[in-house]
Amino acid sequence: MTKDELESVDLKKIKLIGGLLAEKNKLVREQVIPYQWQALNDELADTEPSHAIENFKIAAGRSKGEFHGMVFQDSDVAKWLEAVAYQLTSNPDPKLEKRADEIINLIGEAQEDDGYLNTYFTVKEPEMKWNNLAECHELYCAGHMIEAAVAYYKATGKDKLLSIMKRNADLIDSKFGPETDKLKGYPGHQEIELALIKLYQVSGEKRYRDLAKYFIDQRGKEPFYFTKEWEERGKINHWPDFNQKRERKYYQAHAPVREQKAAAGHAVRALYMYSGMADVARESADQSLIEACRRLWNNTTKKQMYITGGTGSTVQGEAFTIDYDLPNDTAYTETCAAVALVFFAQRMLHLEKKGEYADVMEKALYNGALSGMSEDGKRFFYVNPLEVKPEIADNRHDHRHVRTVRQKWFGCACCPPNLARLLASIGSYIYSQNEEELYLNLYSESKTKVEFDGDEAEIIQRTDYPWDENVEVEIKTEKEIEFTLALRIPGWCKEASLEMNGEQIELSELTEAGYAKIKRNWNNDKINLKIKMPVETVYANPEVREDINKVAIQRGPIVYALEEKDNGDNLAAVYLNVSAEFKTQFESDLLGGITTIKADAYKIDESAWSGELYSTEKLELNEIKIKAVPYYCWNNRGEGEMTVWLKSN
Amino acid sequence: MTKDELESVDLKKIKLIGGLLAEKNKLVREQVIPYQWQALNDELADTEPSHAIENFKIAAGRSKGEFHGMVFQDSDVAKWLEAVAYQLTSNPDPKLEKRADEIINLIGEAQEDDGYLNTYFTVKEPEMKWNNLAECHELYCAGHMIEAAVAYYKATGKDKLLSIMKRNADLIDSKFGPETDKLKGYPGHQEIELALIKLYQVSGEKRYRDLAKYFIDQRGKEPFYFTKEWEERGKINHWPDFNQKRERKYYQAHAPVREQKAAAGHAVRALYMYSGMADVARESADQSLIEACRRLWNNTTKKQMYITGGTGSTVQGEAFTIDYDLPNDTAYTETCAAVALVFFAQRMLHLEKKGEYADVMEKALYNGALSGMSEDGKRFFYVNPLEVKPEIADNRHDHRHVRTVRQKWFGCACCPPNLARLLASIGSYIYSQNEEELYLNLYSESKTKVEFDGDEAEIIQRTDYPWDENVEVEIKTEKEIEFTLALRIPGWCKEASLEMNGEQIELSELTEAGYAKIKRNWNNDKINLKIKMPVETVYANPEVREDINKVAIQRGPIVYALEEKDNGDNLAAVYLNVSAEFKTQFESDLLGGITTIKADAYKIDESAWSGELYSTEKLELNEIKIKAVPYYCWNNRGEGEMTVWLKSN
Repeated sequence: MTKDELESVDLKKIKLIGGLLAEKNKLVREQVIPYQWQALNDELADTEPSHAIENFKIAAGRSKGEFHGMVFQDSDVAKWLEAVAYQLTSNPDPKLEKRADEIINLIGEAQEDDGYLNTYFTVKEPEMKWNNLAECHELYCAGHMIEAAVAYYKATGKDKLLSIMKRNADLIDSKFGPETDKLKGYPGHQEIELALIKLYQVSGEKRYRDLAKYFIDQRGKEPFYFTKEWEERGKINHWPDFNQKRERKYYQAHAPVREQKAAAGHAVRALYMYSGMADVARESADQSLIEACRRLWNNTTKKQMYITGGTGSTVQGEAFTIDYDLPNDTAYTETCAAVALVFFAQRMLHLEKKGEYADVMEKALYNGALSGMSEDGKRFFYVNPLEVKPEIADNRHDHRHVRTVRQKWFGCACCPPNLARLLASIGSYIYSQNEEELYLNLYSESKTKVEFDGDEAEIIQRTDYPWDENVEVEIKTEKEIEFTLALRIPGWCKEASLEMNGEQIELSELTEAGYAKIKRNWNNDKINLKIKMPVETVYANPEVREDINKVAIQRGPIVYALEEKDNGDNLAAVYLNVSAEFKTQFESDLLGGITTIKADAYKIDESAWSGELYSTEKLELNEIKIKAVPYYCWNNRGEGEMTVWLKSN
Repeated sequence: MTKDELESVDLKKIKLIGGLLAEKNKLVREQVIPYQWQALNDELADTEPSHAIENFKIAAGRSKGEFHGMVFQDSDVAKWLEAVAYQLTSNPDPKLEKRADEIINLIGEAQEDDGYLNTYFTVKEPEMKWNNLAECHELYCAGHMIEAAVAYYKATGKDKLLSIMKRNADLIDSKFGPETDKLKGYPGHQEIELALIKLYQVSGEKRYRDLAKYFIDQRGKEPFYFTKEWEERGKINHWPDFNQKRERKYYQAHAPVREQKAAAGHAVRALYMYSGMADVARESADQSLIEACRRLWNNTTKKQMYITGGTGSTVQGEAFTIDYDLPNDTAYTETCAAVALVFFAQRMLHLEKKGEYADVMEKALYNGALSGMSEDGKRFFYVNPLEVKPEIADNRHDHRHVRTVRQKWFGCACCPPNLARLLASIGSYIYSQNEEELYLNLYSESKTKVEFDGDEAEIIQRTDYPWDENVEVEIKTEKEIEFTLALRIPGWCKEASLEMNGEQIELSELTEAGYAKIKRNWNNDKINLKIKMPVETVYANPEVREDINKVAIQRGPIVYALEEKDNGDNLAAVYLNVSAEFKTQFESDLLGGITTIKADAYKIDESAWSGELYSTEKLELNEIKIKAVPYYCWNNRGEGEMTVWLKSN
């Protein structure tokens, strides 16, 4: 790593103290991980059984029976295990660790002698291994289990799962590559690329990095591998409605990755790939790949991203569409895509140290990702639209993907454990460092210890962020330590000020690419950062036709929404009075403690309308008060309408 | 018929003189009928061959080969023939009549000995007759050919096709009915119901009326016939993607028709059925059926109709959805549905003599129906959205049904000949009568002759309607004739005035349910009706969420649209200044001669925007001039954006 780059501060060294992120992290620990354990073991009432653990038992020979579930069902276990690992890193829990060890033993038993590990193929179609990468997620499942293995090793020092997955990765490495006797394929769903980089980082074995790079480089080459393998296996499909002629864009295989200009295809596949590209680019100092990452980042976040950090404008292929096409009610905006954007953003930040990456990371985290889970951690959204009217969602086929209440579990349960692993590891997104600098990316009540030249400093953040604009940072040292402290000045913040040990410091001179950088010999200093957090009305680029004449309410990193519960129905008839004053209030008893926003608005007086379908009569407006709540916590008080974008006067 | 009812003045007695409807009628005669003849004979370049005539030749034994095309391909020939019949009624054309006679001979040869007539089943699946009503359109095709037969008989006095179709109808009557040995089914696509009433009216044979009533009454009964026949034929489907579990609503079979409260399912099926219901109700004085017609009329036109008279809010099932769900860009609004609404409206008008029916008839005709055909009569829209942005339509799967330019022909070519038969018979929508009254429903330069008590009056309309608000009606008689002349005062008209022989007459006292009724002894009188036609801004009911904060521009019966050609792109960024003055101008050289409308408006200044995707910067507006053209003639000057609903300040 050069000093132009960054890496996360080790999760072990981070202690979350309080505030929203700490609460969500605790929710994952106390509710989500046990709940998902029940789900994986088919113990939830009224939901489709997952069968995920049972599949491993059958593959291991402990149970008799058939494989059930998605072809990628194994990955749910992997993501759960990864979340457990992060959890154990910060909060030792012998009972949970024992449970994880038992599952790891089971996974070991399910592994075949040559290192192969995938319960679907072991149990159901052993003769079909590696011949349907397009549909069958073998490499994807391997990737998730590798991530779990690395996390578990780092958390516990136990290398059993790591060994299992190294054997598995070695098998994959023996199957894929440029050598003539190897397959020239790449994953139908990207994931293993970034996992292999983690495996390389923890093992130091370059073949894993090179295999990741191979998969990245191979994609988009001619002839199209997925058609080739389909022909070679006799044109047999796994999914009954699978269309072999599906656009190559769906898989980001429409062009070599370095030639791709815009985010395209399935959003989660795309963002996992971009994350893997950033990893490979960094580990191999590949400038053309870095360029491609920048280009795809810019397109994703400046042309195709919802204000919530959600991506994927259409249910068709759960995909990106075209620039500025951001419909609010039919948005796909999968929870996994917001999680994946957090991954991509952190990797770009670590490559380039620019605040704009942290801005998007924060936006996707606090809005489009958090919205995927209910306040109690037991209900989940897969799709996160920005506007919902239940009777429309229930009756229109083009809204068929929109659920108007969070679900207990899903047949395709990728999102809940993905959010769990993100929130379990959220500490590692707060701080980044290199040999000279410590970056504070996210503000959250927490502490960490960092070393510079062998000397340790303790960093303590005290803040009620994201509800409060004040952040106190205490730097505790035993002696003077020289390093640069880089405090993020969020892109949404128009006015920030800073005191060091009670003295005002001019920020503008210190600030570069979104971070205020203070280089000094630290010796028990205290910084008070104020990042002014007024309520803002945000407009979308006028190319976004769905948002013209509308505003979104935002305060700090939090995007707000109106719910029917607070504002009545027909929210489309509400006009925000943009010149009126906003009133904020922290309501500790509401939705886990949130700041709500009240404002003056108008609403069409439906009772004054004749009832005609069309008429030349004028619409009359009533003055009303509206109340907005953070988007992420919508739909925790029953079913009803919701909208992020509001008409404005 | 009672004097509470009406019937059309015989098409033979009507002469179109000039104006928009006469021009469209002439276009059908001179361009559309010959063009469609080429289409039916596979003579159009660069289009999918129709094969429709060839199918008849194969069935008749004149050609060898396979059936090609849709299972309902025969109906394209029927509709063409019906259009030809109307055409011959008003404009004798021996060459065309000879061509029609030849086709009728061919149809006769294609008929089987027992009266069966359907080239698909005769040629391709003779063993499958009558066992798949849900999918295979046998009764639908029969209905269209019956309509053609009645029209041709009325036009020419030749009864060959009528005899063919009576034999066919008799066969159907022998197959379907309440008797134990008969099938208890009903059409998968309604059409034959209203055709059988026409056959009854022309033949006087009540069994045809009773069969129509049987089909109407049978629908919605338990058990669901289409599931029963599917099981009985071994669960074989005609359409590969046909879902037997498709909602019964699609076929309007979710409840007995008298219990149906809202328009539901496939819009054309529904509206044909409602038309058939109105016919049966009238011919059998069935009050409960009339009540059902009123209820379904009210729901259709007051809750589920676009301002263009289009219906069908979703491509999924080409169907009605729920009240007030009227998305503009994904609207299905099939040309056939607008044509069918004209049919339904005329039938309701003839049942109840209320102007509201004629209002909708006029609206659907001038807007949602006419838009289906290009100015040259050689390009057609199947789907008629109210808002189009080509790059969205081309890239979003939920817009997959939207074509951004009219097409030469369609694999499923129901719409072009449907529009042709409507426009060929348009004269019969202008005037209606009973033994005491003559109703002027549509204003159009034309003349007719009507008899009251054996005495004849000639009625001459002189007008430039719909471009001009003045209508002169001359009543020429040889002696005094007493009757009531009922002049429609359109629902959109807020100020009308009337002079009789130069003297002002107070209209309000004469006007009842949308018609000014003048009962007198007519003797060469002249009426000058002025129906003020200012440009109006129309609002939608605030329950229509897609239209909130928007206005449509309407003048008289014509709904206007903005096109990119006149107004630049990003029409979503245009705001109409509703307090500004509208300027109208008749442009004789534009789009066949239309009145255009200019107005002041604002448009977001995209060049002043930073380029950010989201920003707190305010949007700046530029003053612009906009120009609107009639919706029906959009897309005759190249591909581009279009919108009916405009934001307003």
